[in-house]
Amino acid sequence: MVGSSLPPGFRFHPTDEELVGYYLNRRNEGLVIELEIIPGIDLYKFDPWELPEKSFLPSRDMEWFFFCHRDRKYHNGSRINRATKSGYWKATGKDRKIVCQSSSSVTGCRKTLVFYLGRAPFGGRTEWVMHEYRLYDNDTSQGSLSFKGDFALCRVMKRNELTLKKCENSSPEVSNEPLSNNVEISCQESYLGKGSCDTSITLGASPDFNRESSLKV
Amino acid sequence: MVGSSLPPGFRFHPTDEELVGYYLNRRNEGLVIELEIIPGIDLYKFDPWELPEKSFLPSRDMEWFFFCHRDRKYHNGSRINRATKSGYWKATGKDRKIVCQSSSSVTGCRKTLVFYLGRAPFGGRTEWVMHEYRLYDNDTSQGSLSFKGDFALCRVMKRNELTLKKCENSSPEVSNEPLSNNVEISCQESYLGKGSCDTSITLGASPDFNRESSLKV
Repeated sequence: MVGSSLPPGFRFHPTDEELVGYYLNRRNEGLVIELEIIPGIDLYKFDPWELPEKSFLPSRDMEWFFFCHRDRKYHNGSRINRATKSGYWKATGKDRKIVCQSSSSVTGCRKTLVFYLGRAPFGGRTEWVMHEYRLYDNDTSQGSLSFKGDFALCRVMKRNELTLKKCENSSPEVSNEPLSNNVEISCQESYLGKGSCDTSITLGASPDFNRESSLKV
Repeated sequence: MVGSSLPPGFRFHPTDEELVGYYLNRRNEGLVIELEIIPGIDLYKFDPWELPEKSFLPSRDMEWFFFCHRDRKYHNGSRINRATKSGYWKATGKDRKIVCQSSSSVTGCRKTLVFYLGRAPFGGRTEWVMHEYRLYDNDTSQGSLSFKGDFALCRVMKRNELTLKKCENSSPEVSNEPLSNNVEISCQESYLGKGSCDTSITLGASPDFNRESSLKV
């Protein structure tokens, strides 16, 4: 494993399509991934607050990415066991189909889950949310959609007031309020004295990365 | 100039603090910037729709970054001439003070401006928005805040329905709607057959980047 630092301002902010079409597809196909920045873990062995420290990417966005092997709840069934020591992940909302237009052979699904403390159906909802990505098997000869591949890709998120606020703040203030009222925000990064900042990501790269990303004029 | 590609999912998504505390501060102080990914241009010589092609970073986020020298409207005045060929940039909303906690000596200001077509005060508002960052002079011996440095850093954005939608979509669906209703989204990237995707950024780096970012075990 080798590592390199990114310059200030560069972050791992993948789209759903990149997660499915590149990272998940390549993991399931056994193809080389340029940078091995998504670890594989036995996700449901851990409560969500134990997960951030297992990520290769320290994330100020409160998002962490993992590959997770598909263990079934019952040996001969298709249901997934999503219980942890302190609670369980429960699906919510609509599943979202992800189609990679560059290759119609790769499609996937994004399921949203929320973590509940305790045991179903009496668990207490928490701020921990997960997007679970899976690949669809495009062989529809059997008439129904099914999943393929041994791995899911999970984006674990901690939602809180601040996270929601960040999204709201990303649209500019375009009201016609009087000027020169200063709103103070603060910065916790310390990159002033050096080439790269504390929040820049240290990447774990496969040896192929060196070859593939060789600098070119 | 040398260039290297980033792996899929990595993007230039800087915080205000990184823009002010690292990029703008270093530009004004004449210090080395690890990656020269923000070009200096005479911003008001161009209408906003001419700017994206001048950026070093093709941005799917409809955001482009530039350094801009502070030309004054009148030789002996302090007002900035923000008129272009087809219209003008007009300040709106509240200015935001940006404090870098790692070094209280660096503070800055973010001003929001909207582009209007035509001539003031009869211009027509457009979807082009700009955040203009400046450094504050922390020598407050004269009792009032003033700016320092010859350069401003400008984040030019084109806001549209899609951009706003993207922000809304970034919070998960946590309603208790029935499952298995698929919502289809699509992907225009084509990275399936290669190491990095079309949307990965090609970086223009200063020669120092090679030295500073050398891979380490």
